[in-house]
Amino acid sequence: MELTILGCGSALPTTRHNPSSQVLNVRDKLYMIDCGEGTQLEMRRAKLHFGRLGHIFISHLHGDHCFGLFGLISTFNLLGRTAELHIHSPQGLEELMQPLLSYFCQQLTYQVLFHPFDAHKAECIFADRSIRVTTIPLRHRLPCCGFLFEESEGLRHIIREMVDYYEVPLYLRNSIRQGADYVTPEGVTILNEQLTRPGDPARRYAYVSDTLPLPSVVAQVKGVDLLYHEATFADEEQARARETLHTTASQAADIARQAQVGHLLIGHYSARYETEEPLLRQAQALFSATTLAQEGVKIEILPHSIKLFTPTRVE
Amino acid sequence: MELTILGCGSALPTTRHNPSSQVLNVRDKLYMIDCGEGTQLEMRRAKLHFGRLGHIFISHLHGDHCFGLFGLISTFNLLGRTAELHIHSPQGLEELMQPLLSYFCQQLTYQVLFHPFDAHKAECIFADRSIRVTTIPLRHRLPCCGFLFEESEGLRHIIREMVDYYEVPLYLRNSIRQGADYVTPEGVTILNEQLTRPGDPARRYAYVSDTLPLPSVVAQVKGVDLLYHEATFADEEQARARETLHTTASQAADIARQAQVGHLLIGHYSARYETEEPLLRQAQALFSATTLAQEGVKIEILPHSIKLFTPTRVE
Repeated sequence: MELTILGCGSALPTTRHNPSSQVLNVRDKLYMIDCGEGTQLEMRRAKLHFGRLGHIFISHLHGDHCFGLFGLISTFNLLGRTAELHIHSPQGLEELMQPLLSYFCQQLTYQVLFHPFDAHKAECIFADRSIRVTTIPLRHRLPCCGFLFEESEGLRHIIREMVDYYEVPLYLRNSIRQGADYVTPEGVTILNEQLTRPGDPARRYAYVSDTLPLPSVVAQVKGVDLLYHEATFADEEQARARETLHTTASQAADIARQAQVGHLLIGHYSARYETEEPLLRQAQALFSATTLAQEGVKIEILPHSIKLFTPTRVE
Repeated sequence: MELTILGCGSALPTTRHNPSSQVLNVRDKLYMIDCGEGTQLEMRRAKLHFGRLGHIFISHLHGDHCFGLFGLISTFNLLGRTAELHIHSPQGLEELMQPLLSYFCQQLTYQVLFHPFDAHKAECIFADRSIRVTTIPLRHRLPCCGFLFEESEGLRHIIREMVDYYEVPLYLRNSIRQGADYVTPEGVTILNEQLTRPGDPARRYAYVSDTLPLPSVVAQVKGVDLLYHEATFADEEQARARETLHTTASQAADIARQAQVGHLLIGHYSARYETEEPLLRQAQALFSATTLAQEGVKIEILPHSIKLFTPTRVE
C-alpha cells in the first residue's frame, strides 16, 4: 500500500505546490484521490502507470480538486485506452463534465462512468478484492467527503513444513490460504491454524480534505495507519480557517491524537506560506508522528507507521 | 515586444513540454495565445504579472489549446480581479465554458467576455493603441486560426537640439512626436522632418498552429520579424503529418523561407521526440535563422531578428 502525493497545495497553485491529487497503490492497482489541474503531468513525473488507474475519487466540486480531469480523460483517449474509468464524486460532476467530454473527446475509445454519492452520510461506495472505500462526510462550503481506504485481509501464509508433512495436494493450497481446514485421505481433520500463519495485517488510510475539524472524523478514522488531514492554515490564522471552513495545523494534529492514528500527513497548504515548517512544528507539538506532504513524495503505509521516499525530481 | 513561451508541446503533455501557450508583451500589456492545461503555473514561473493580461486568443477548440482557461479564470477570481478579461476564439467556446464558470466561479469578481470569430476568413479581430491582431485561417481538423500581431507605429523621436533651437513649447512636444509641424510665433512653419527622427519600426509577430502547411499563410506572414510555426513532426513522419493535418520541420522552414521572415521559431512538438535537435537540423537546412521553442524562454522581437533569453528555471 503506497501513497504518492501529486499535489498538496490549496486553491491557488504556486510554483511550490500543485492543487490536490494523490494516488494510492494497492497491490499494483491505482486509486486516485482528487484531480487538480496538472495531475496528469505529475502522474508522469511520478512514473505512475496510466493503465493501472481504474478509479478516481473526488472529494468535492471545487476547481482545485477536479480541473485536472479534462486533460487526464483526454490524454487517456489519445493513448487509446479501452478499460473503463470510474469517477466517484458528490452529485453534479457528470452534468458539468459531459458536454465538454462530448465536444473535446469525440469517439472516446473507452467509457467514463460517473458514480455520484450522497456526501451527507458515511457509506461504502466501492469495494473490490483488494480494497473497500467508505466516504467520510466533511463540513465545507459545499458537499464534501473524505475517503477511508481499507485493505482486504491478506491471505494466510502457508507453513511449508506442515503442508509437506501432511502431503496437502497443490490444488487445495489456495483454499488453505483462505482459512480452510485439511481433511487427510484417512479422514483426519488438520486445523487451519496448524497449517498456516496469519496473513499480512490489513492497512487503512484516510484522506480528509477540505473541512472544519470534526469530532465525527475522529470516530471514523480511529486507529488508521495513516491519516492525511488538510492543514490549510497555521494556528495564527485560526479565525480565517473557521471563516473559510478549513483546519489549522494544531487542529489537524489534535484529530490525529484523538483518533490515535499511526502517522499524520498534513497538506492543502495556503499559498501564503513560503515554507510549511511552522505548520509542521505546530502539528508536531501535539502529535509528533507528523510529516509534511510534498509533491513527488512516495509513502509506504505500514502497520501503524510509514516509510518515506523523497525522489530526486528531474525536470 | 517580448514573447514568452509557456508551452510548446502538442496534445500529449510530457515531463519535457507543456501544451500550447505563449504570452506576448507589447508595451507592458500582455496578450496570451492559447491556454493549455498548466498555463497559470507557467505564467507564475515566468514571473508574468496576471494583472497585465487583458486578452486571450485561442487558435482552436482542442483541449491542449484551451483546458488551462478553467484554472486561470478561477485563480483570477480568487485573487479578486476586477478588470475585464477578453477571450477571442472560434465559435463555440462560450457555450462550452459558461456552465462550468457559473458553477465553479459563482460571484465572479470580474467579467469574462467571449468574442467568437469566423475562422474561415482573415480579419482584424482586435486593435488598441499598441497592437492590431488579424486572424490567419489555417487548415486543421476543426476551425482553426493563427494570429498576426502588428505593433502600432512608434511615436517619432524628437531631435533635442532642433526643438531647443526653435524654442518649441513643452505642451506641443506630444503633437510634434505624432508628426505635426511647428509654427513659430512669427508664423514660420518648421517641418516635422526638421524636428524629429522616425520612431521605432513597428514589429510584427505571427503565430501559426495547428495546420497543414499553407501557401495562404506565406502570403499573410510575408516579412514578419518573427514567425512561430508548428512543426509537430520530423520529415520522416510526413505521411503522419498530412494525415493528422500537421506540419513537418522542413515544411515549416519552407514557409519561413518563402515568406522571407526575420526569424523562425518552431514548436508544438509531438510527444514521441526525446530531443528536438533533429527537427532543428531539418528546419535549419532550409532556413538557418530557426530556433527551437522551449518553456520559459523569452524572446525579444527586433526588426527582422530576435534576442533570446533562456532563464535558469528554479522549481
